[in-house]
Amino acid sequence: MGEPRQDRSRATRRRLLDAAVDCLAEVGWTGSTVSVVAERAGVSRGAAQHHFPTREDLFTAAIEHVTDERLAAMRAELPSLPPGLARTEHVVQTIGEMYAGKLFRAALQLWVAAASDEPLRAKVVPLEAHVGREAHRLTVEALGADESRPGVREAVQATLDLARGFGLANLLTDDAKRRHRVLTEWASMLHATLDR
Amino acid sequence: MGEPRQDRSRATRRRLLDAAVDCLAEVGWTGSTVSVVAERAGVSRGAAQHHFPTREDLFTAAIEHVTDERLAAMRAELPSLPPGLARTEHVVQTIGEMYAGKLFRAALQLWVAAASDEPLRAKVVPLEAHVGREAHRLTVEALGADESRPGVREAVQATLDLARGFGLANLLTDDAKRRHRVLTEWASMLHATLDR
Repeated sequence: MGEPRQDRSRATRRRLLDAAVDCLAEVGWTGSTVSVVAERAGVSRGAAQHHFPTREDLFTAAIEHVTDERLAAMRAELPSLPPGLARTEHVVQTIGEMYAGKLFRAALQLWVAAASDEPLRAKVVPLEAHVGREAHRLTVEALGADESRPGVREAVQATLDLARGFGLANLLTDDAKRRHRVLTEWASMLHATLDR
Repeated sequence: MGEPRQDRSRATRRRLLDAAVDCLAEVGWTGSTVSVVAERAGVSRGAAQHHFPTREDLFTAAIEHVTDERLAAMRAELPSLPPGLARTEHVVQTIGEMYAGKLFRAALQLWVAAASDEPLRAKVVPLEAHVGREAHRLTVEALGADESRPGVREAVQATLDLARGFGLANLLTDDAKRRHRVLTEWASMLHATLDR
């Protein structure tokens, strides 16, 4: 008996999280409230507040959920990646695309709002640590990088810092062509470091 | 007779621009208005509005002015830079510091607000192009990079994208130690590319 109700509740939660990411990416933090997201998700305000008592809860949970889901999808693709430089290129371009998309735009709104909002900051700092750790772990695995070799850990981190920089460069204008070109060069520099 | 009045006007303008960057970095776009900045700068609201008719004018002018000033200060240091890898390291770390500071925090607030504010976006896009072009030009000069050699232009661009990524990573927590470590590795990878 409990099972279908749990399923419904999980589906509602899921709709709210997806709508929260869309909302944040489109209208920014100022216009993003639990009510606006509930309406967008077709969920009653009461039900939304049952799942997420505060605005901070809803939006940090949304970024965490969608990021974890995205990283899991990338992890599922790992067995089919080619070897060698082609692998490094694929991984670097895939990460670049990920940070150029809607999820990063939404996260960026949350991060930047948190810079001048202490209660939000208290929730975003641990979320940033979680996302950073998981993205790093997956990148190491995807590249088949041996972090015990000199410079490798730093080069993997640089890949993610670079992707964040590209995400920012893609915020107001379409930067895809330049990004692809620079990341191709970066992949060859990174590959030489992984291999040396 | 006109000279001192012009000087005063220029000093007022300058105080407004500096206060605008401080304000944007501290309280974000939502709390940053011409009135708030005028008060912070000790300038009457009327005088502020004489210099900057709109909020968009004031804050885009502020980011442009302070960036140009910062780049000019970096340019003035170029003759005293050491040669070789030490130069590449110095340039890379200096750019990293620049993007980790108050000016970048202020610019980030403006960029992110522009993502969901069309009139602001129309002003920020040309400003972003100007800042990007000037920062690139100075970096090429500082590194003594020959952009006609394969991969060099992309590696210089990657340096600035990386710096932007570090700026973001430094927004909510102090990331200085990690940044320094990764940029040291980046400098050696970049130097090999400039030199190859």
